[in-house]
Amino acid sequence: MRPSWLRRTEGVEIVLGIDPGTAVTGYGVVSHRDDGSVVLLECGVIRTSSGQPLPDRIREVFIGIRDIIDRFKPSSVAVEDVFQGKNVRSALSLGHARGAILLAAALQDLPIAEYSPRAIKKTVVGTGSATKDQVGYMVQRHLRLKNPPTPADAADGVATALCHCFVTGTPVR
Amino acid sequence: MRPSWLRRTEGVEIVLGIDPGTAVTGYGVVSHRDDGSVVLLECGVIRTSSGQPLPDRIREVFIGIRDIIDRFKPSSVAVEDVFQGKNVRSALSLGHARGAILLAAALQDLPIAEYSPRAIKKTVVGTGSATKDQVGYMVQRHLRLKNPPTPADAADGVATALCHCFVTGTPVR
Repeated sequence: MRPSWLRRTEGVEIVLGIDPGTAVTGYGVVSHRDDGSVVLLECGVIRTSSGQPLPDRIREVFIGIRDIIDRFKPSSVAVEDVFQGKNVRSALSLGHARGAILLAAALQDLPIAEYSPRAIKKTVVGTGSATKDQVGYMVQRHLRLKNPPTPADAADGVATALCHCFVTGTPVR
Repeated sequence: MRPSWLRRTEGVEIVLGIDPGTAVTGYGVVSHRDDGSVVLLECGVIRTSSGQPLPDRIREVFIGIRDIIDRFKPSSVAVEDVFQGKNVRSALSLGHARGAILLAAALQDLPIAEYSPRAIKKTVVGTGSATKDQVGYMVQRHLRLKNPPTPADAADGVATALCHCFVTGTPVR
């Protein structure tokens, strides 16, 4: 459940959370309401084929995110930051996808918040070392869904959006 | 001088060469003519400040490249590929800038060629271990300029364009 000590003091905010990847980018769009509740509007993944040239894959990620922004008009975008231990090749590939995602948001002048995977797990699950299943389960609980979002990358996108809602929410004293 | 065994068999081609970087992106635009000659049209750098948020820097690189494409309408884009030995942080940062550059070209449906730094030096200078000064000198010689392009990143952008011209040129048998 969403911690009771968190409450938004401003109006409704639409938050787009993104877990970037060159092959699979997960996203979740949530509505963060005045009463502190958070409602899932949509989640899913943008998949690109490893058989495609890299520029085409980047374009698909960019256009996918741009379309989601067009449809939901979020007031802020939260993007998962990068795990530092990844190897150079993974980091470079991920950098390309993240560049396209940050650009899609920046071209719309949207504020962008970045959270480490550890911070997202800590905020949403309570422990920075949570498993994928635990993240899915807590996303389901927080949003009162029948099942965890699938695939796991979509749940990670939603978790990123939730993390932003919880971090920017104002605690009730 | 440009090797005499290379000659284009098709019409004039405008090539945009790019040496990507988050802080400094170098570029060179050349005209590759029917008679095999290559003429420098423009070169320069896109600089971004490390004090700016990353999304803003990526946007500047993207808009800078997009504007060059708009002005020169190149028929192909050549982008320097990445040195594999870089550390994870550098690779990630560079990946963001490269993502924005590839995207600017892909959104215009331009063919994109990627060359390793070693291939560019080997093709333009004759040795894959050439220094920055040697690259600048050979760029000057190939294009019959009074001086090497400055800064060195601009020369690297031009060298990338030259590499593409030489590699795609048809040898005279």
